[in-house]
Amino acid sequence: MDKGHLVPAHLLEIDMEGRAIAGRGKPSAETGLHTVIYRERPDTRAILHVHTIWNTLLSSMFAQTGHVLLEGYELLKGLSEVITHEHQERVPILANSQDYAVLADQLSQTLRQNPRAHGVLLNRHGLYTWGESAAEARRHLEALEFLFEVEGRRLTSGIG
Amino acid sequence: MDKGHLVPAHLLEIDMEGRAIAGRGKPSAETGLHTVIYRERPDTRAILHVHTIWNTLLSSMFAQTGHVLLEGYELLKGLSEVITHEHQERVPILANSQDYAVLADQLSQTLRQNPRAHGVLLNRHGLYTWGESAAEARRHLEALEFLFEVEGRRLTSGIG
Amino acid sequence: MDKGHLVPAHLLEIDMEGRAIAGRGKPSAETGLHTVIYRERPDTRAILHVHTIWNTLLSSMFAQTGHVLLEGYELLKGLSEVITHEHQERVPILANSQDYAVLADQLSQTLRQNPRAHGVLLNRHGLYTWGESAAEARRHLEALEFLFEVEGRRLTSGIG
Amino acid sequence: MDKGHLVPAHLLEIDMEGRAIAGRGKPSAETGLHTVIYRERPDTRAILHVHTIWNTLLSSMFAQTGHVLLEGYELLKGLSEVITHEHQERVPILANSQDYAVLADQLSQTLRQNPRAHGVLLNRHGLYTWGESAAEARRHLEALEFLFEVEGRRLTSGIG
Repeated sequence: MDKGHLVPAHLLEIDMEGRAIAGRGKPSAETGLHTVIYRERPDTRAILHVHTIWNTLLSSMFAQTGHVLLEGYELLKGLSEVITHEHQERVPILANSQDYAVLADQLSQTLRQNPRAHGVLLNRHGLYTWGESAAEARRHLEALEFLFEVEGRRLTSGIG
Repeated sequence: MDKGHLVPAHLLEIDMEGRAIAGRGKPSAETGLHTVIYRERPDTRAILHVHTIWNTLLSSMFAQTGHVLLEGYELLKGLSEVITHEHQERVPILANSQDYAVLADQLSQTLRQNPRAHGVLLNRHGLYTWGESAAEARRHLEALEFLFEVEGRRLTSGIG
Repeated sequence: MDKGHLVPAHLLEIDMEGRAIAGRGKPSAETGLHTVIYRERPDTRAILHVHTIWNTLLSSMFAQTGHVLLEGYELLKGLSEVITHEHQERVPILANSQDYAVLADQLSQTLRQNPRAHGVLLNRHGLYTWGESAAEARRHLEALEFLFEVEGRRLTSGIG
Repeated sequence: MDKGHLVPAHLLEIDMEGRAIAGRGKPSAETGLHTVIYRERPDTRAILHVHTIWNTLLSSMFAQTGHVLLEGYELLKGLSEVITHEHQERVPILANSQDYAVLADQLSQTLRQNPRAHGVLLNRHGLYTWGESAAEARRHLEALEFLFEVEGRRLTSGIG
């Protein structure tokens, strides 16, 4: 469905087992990834998931490394509890899969192993990020996407 | 004519031989490519043809190979009947020509040889894609253009 | 002056010697380049001059060659009287100068030596293009800028 | 706070010691950098500070050199008192720091050592630029950001 045509009537309320409890339609196959995040990060009130050029590129470039490392940028301070550009943010990368039960388990482990991560990439798929409010989730999204583009351009520039 | 100035009165209805049957004006020279697609893909209800930076670049980069190969991306699932990122999409590339009768024949053959292709590129010219509705054609367009840009940037990055 | 704040009262009518004949204010220092184009291309009714990322880059990349060569692209057909992608468009590049009298002379010569050119670049400065109507000048601008970006990206990609 | 949600009631008036004298809230930690600029450049009536892809990239590429050199571009004339593209603009780069008192001292020295600079970069952080009016500060911002992008693309293109 074209996201540009979304209206409130299309929204679906689900419970923590991923069952629809209000609204009409079938929950998305990726619902299980959302409930994992709400479970592992109990303060979370909003999750954003986007497919963009630069998050797709960086997830592919660093798939073997297993994470994208972002450091030394002032905009890291856009991430909650980060107070200095000297912060090192590791954004874990999971292999993509159509088996969402398996993927949910891996996401759960990854969130436990990276308790301070602000986002997780799926290889050649997209970014999950979250926050204690919709505004915070959006701030995390904007900060991470900006940093993915800067870092992607820097690494492929052959300079500095 | 500037597409930004198009109004309904400019639209032309044509038959399957490319003759105008409603509206005023002369059918475009590329009309024959549209009717070939409607013939070879009988479920098609809408065709989109665009000239963009990245489809032009990729058509040129892979002109000798004869196709652009897209694989491993979640967004491939934006193409009808594709249900996994493990799908391999080959987008055939035809040499460009001003002889549209010849080009129509080549397009016809290409569509038969690639029964599951969702789009065809003309070298240094643009993309043809289609769908069973205007919405599906547009979804195919967005998915393919996104993938052309990601794949173009990846291939020229020297990394991953 | 911020072009976003332009209103009709800011426009100035000039004669072919570059003297203001209606409106208030002083003609731009580059007026002499406009009158040269109107003189050398008598069918011209509109001239557009823009500073963009890609025309600046290509003017710099090819300053020593003296022109940008665009060939093989379908969008060349956006230029008046060009009917095939096999057309070769040479966009001459002049050294930039703050001596507009000298620059006007060089532009005049360049236009005579390149009677079929649809635009001229000033090195690290910008593009001049024109047309028999504002719509045609704009079509030329859009075609040339698209081609500068494609060609710039192609040449720096290391591929195809 | 999301800048897209700013309304006049969010604005804070401060004195030259960085103390709020009107409005509600606490001055930003970077306030001290603004007052240094007003002090060292007494004609300044507006300061702009932005984080962009290209200023971040160039500040990183040239951090060791200590400045970005911009020369030969017509758009340099967008900077006040610059009347020729032959101008050399050096944009100094400071190491980023969370100690704003130290950073303010370094900025003060840098402004004295570069009396004709129109902007200063903080490494991997952003640009400060200013003007005798909001319009002039914005013109400086647009000119510098355009030049950062052109120069960044030129340097990483491997050509010209």
